Amino acid sequence: MKIALLGATGSIGLQTLDVVRNTLQTAEIVALTGYSSIQKLAEIANEFEPKMVCVADSAAAMRLKPFLKKPCEILTGADGLNACAAESTADIVVNALVGRVGLLPTLAAINAGKDVALANKETLVTAGQLIMELAGEKNVRIIPIDSEHSAIWQCLQGNENNKVEKIILTASGGPFRTWEKGKIATATANDALRHPSWSMGAKITIDSATLMNKGLELIEAMWLFGGTSYQILIHPQSIIHSMVQYSDGSVMAQLGLPDMRLPILYALSAPKRVKTNYPRLDFLTCGNLTFEEPDAERFPCLSLAQYAAKTGGTLPAVMNTINEWAVSRFLQEKIGFYDISELISHAFSAYTVKPLHSANDIIEAEQWAMEFVIK
Amino acid sequence: MKIALLGATGSIGLQTLDVVRNTLQTAEIVALTGYSSIQKLAEIANEFEPKMVCVADSAAAMRLKPFLKKPCEILTGADGLNACAAESTADIVVNALVGRVGLLPTLAAINAGKDVALANKETLVTAGQLIMELAGEKNVRIIPIDSEHSAIWQCLQGNENNKVEKIILTASGGPFRTWEKGKIATATANDALRHPSWSMGAKITIDSATLMNKGLELIEAMWLFGGTSYQILIHPQSIIHSMVQYSDGSVMAQLGLPDMRLPILYALSAPKRVKTNYPRLDFLTCGNLTFEEPDAERFPCLSLAQYAAKTGGTLPAVMNTINEWAVSRFLQEKIGFYDISELISHAFSAYTVKPLHSANDIIEAEQWAMEFVIK
Repeated sequence: MKIALLGATGSIGLQTLDVVRNTLQTAEIVALTGYSSIQKLAEIANEFEPKMVCVADSAAAMRLKPFLKKPCEILTGADGLNACAAESTADIVVNALVGRVGLLPTLAAINAGKDVALANKETLVTAGQLIMELAGEKNVRIIPIDSEHSAIWQCLQGNENNKVEKIILTASGGPFRTWEKGKIATATANDALRHPSWSMGAKITIDSATLMNKGLELIEAMWLFGGTSYQILIHPQSIIHSMVQYSDGSVMAQLGLPDMRLPILYALSAPKRVKTNYPRLDFLTCGNLTFEEPDAERFPCLSLAQYAAKTGGTLPAVMNTINEWAVSRFLQEKIGFYDISELISHAFSAYTVKPLHSANDIIEAEQWAMEFVIK
Repeated sequence: MKIALLGATGSIGLQTLDVVRNTLQTAEIVALTGYSSIQKLAEIANEFEPKMVCVADSAAAMRLKPFLKKPCEILTGADGLNACAAESTADIVVNALVGRVGLLPTLAAINAGKDVALANKETLVTAGQLIMELAGEKNVRIIPIDSEHSAIWQCLQGNENNKVEKIILTASGGPFRTWEKGKIATATANDALRHPSWSMGAKITIDSATLMNKGLELIEAMWLFGGTSYQILIHPQSIIHSMVQYSDGSVMAQLGLPDMRLPILYALSAPKRVKTNYPRLDFLTCGNLTFEEPDAERFPCLSLAQYAAKTGGTLPAVMNTINEWAVSRFLQEKIGFYDISELISHAFSAYTVKPLHSANDIIEAEQWAMEFVIK
C-alpha cells in the first residue's frame, strides 16, 4: 500500500509514521507534507524516502533541501499540498492536517480517485456535503481516523443492511469536566492542556476542554454515518470509544486504551486487523466505566455545534473558523475560556446562513468569519 | 421461517414464543415440545397451532389431548422429541431443553439438515466435538442463544477473517459474589435463587451461583468459536454481555439490558436485526460498569470446569452429569453449596477420561457419573 501523508510532523502524522514503521511494514510513504518543522520533516523524509515532500514556501524548501540524503521532489504551498494529495502512485491519502487547510487537498485527493483516511475533522465539518457527494461520484472511500468515528465504523461492520437506531458518541469530558463554571471562566490554556486521558495537539485539546471537539465530531459523524439519532455521552475513562445502538436494542461498542495508532492502523487495513504489540486494555486495572450527561450550561460550545449541525449550509464553516481563531487567541492567553463560545454565539446572531453549492461558498463563509472576528 | 421449538414451556421456550408472537411475526411454530406443564403446553399449542406436539409419555398425551382446540399430532418421549427436532417443514430448531436431554434431539436436527439455535448448553458441553463435526458435515449452523455467546457472535460479525486474540466472557458473579466463604458454605437454594440481574430457571440460577454456569459457557464457547484464549471477567451489572479482543488490540463488546429475547431474536434473524420495542439500555441510569477477577477459592466449580475444558474427551460429560445431580439435590436442600464442587472434584479423581468417538461414549460417561453419585 502506498500512502500520501499530509501533515506528517503533527501528532497524527507522527503516529501514522509509527504505524507504518512498526506495524504495517508493507506500507510505503510516497508523499509527505509538513509545515514549519523542517528538521523533523527532513528526518522523516530520510527514513521513509518518499517521492515528494511539500513544505510551506520556497524559503522552507531552501532550508529543507540540504538535510535530504536522497533526491526528492520538493513542492511548496497549497499547490504542492494538492499535488501530494493527488500523487498518482498513492493508493490512499492520510489527511492529518490541522484546521481548515485540510479541505482543498481532500477534494484534490478525491478528484484523483484516492481513498482518503481523514483525521482532519474540519474538512467534513465545513464541507461534508461536498466531500461525500464527490466521494460518491468518484467511488472513493472516506475513512475515519478519529478514535470515535473509527469505533463507530468498527461497530457497523457486519451490520451493513441493518437499521441504526442511535449512535452514541462518547467524550472524555475534557480537563474541566468536574470544574465549576466560575473556575472554568478563569481557566488558562495551561489548565486546559492537562488533558486527562488523550495526548493530543494543542488545538484539539482546547476543543476537548470546550466540548467543541465533540460538536465537530458530531457533524463529522453525521456526514460519515448519516442522519440517524445521536447521543453525546460523557465517559471520562475514554475506554469505550463510541457505540452503535441497533433497531433491535442491541448496542455494539468498541473499547481500547487511548492510543491513536489503533484507529490509524484500522483506517489503513480495515476490515482486516493487523497484529500489534500496542499495550492491551486490562479490565482488572482500568477502573470503573462511568457515564454522565454533558452539561450545556458549563460547555456552551456543544449546543452551538449541535445548532450548526442542525442548521447546516455554511454555518458549520463559520463556526469552525471562529472557533479556530478563538482557540488560537486563547492559547496565546489573549482571551478567556468563555470568550470562545461568546464569539461563536455572536457570529451566529450576525450571520445569514447560505446553502452550500461549492468550495467557494465555504471560502466566502470563512472570509466573513475572519472579518467578523478581526473587527 | 418455520421453527421447531424444543422445551416450549421453560424460561427460554416461553421467551422464544414471546419473540415470535410480538416481534418476528413472519415466523411460524411447526413443532412444540413440553414436559410436564400440560396446561401451559395446551395454551401454547392452541395459540400457535403447530403441526405436532411432543410430551413426556402417553399419560401426558392423554391429559393434553382434550385441551387442544385443533387436531395436531401428539408424540411422546425421546422418539417424539427427535421427530420434532427433525420435522421436515422446519427451517430451524430452537433447542431450549434443560439439561442433558438436549443432546440427542440436537443430533437428530443436524442429521435432518436443520440449523440449530441452541440454548441448551449441556449439548455442546458434553458433545461439542461430535456436534460441530456433524454440523460441518451436514453444512448446518449451530447458533448460540445464550446472551454471552450471542454477544461474542455479534462481536465477530464483519471480522470473519480476522484473528481473535482473546474472548472475554463476562459473568454477573451470581448472588454470592460478595459473600465470604463461610457464609456461602451455609447458603440455601433460596439464597441462590435471588439472582441479581437475570431472571432464569432454577438449575441455571444455581449454576450461576457456583460459577459452573460460566464454566459450562466457556466449554460451549470453545466449541462455537474455537480454541483461542479466554478470560472470564466478573461484571456484576450484566450490561456488557461479552467481548472479543482482536490481534490489533481492539475490543468489540455487545451491551444491552438483561433480556433473553434479544439473543433469541438475533439467533432467529441474524445478521439482520429486527426492530423491537424492548426496553433500551440507558447509560445515564445504568450505573457504573465494574469488573473483577473471579475468585477460584470461593467458587471452585469454575476451576473444575476449566480443567474439564482443557482435558476434553468424556470429562465434561461426567462433570455435567454430576453437576446436574448435585444441583437438583441442592435445590431439594439435601446437600450444601460446596458439596456440589466436592462431588465433582471427587469424581474427577475417581474417573479415567476417555476420548470421544460417538454419543455412546457420552452415555457411558454419564452412566458412570450417575453410578458414582448414587453409590
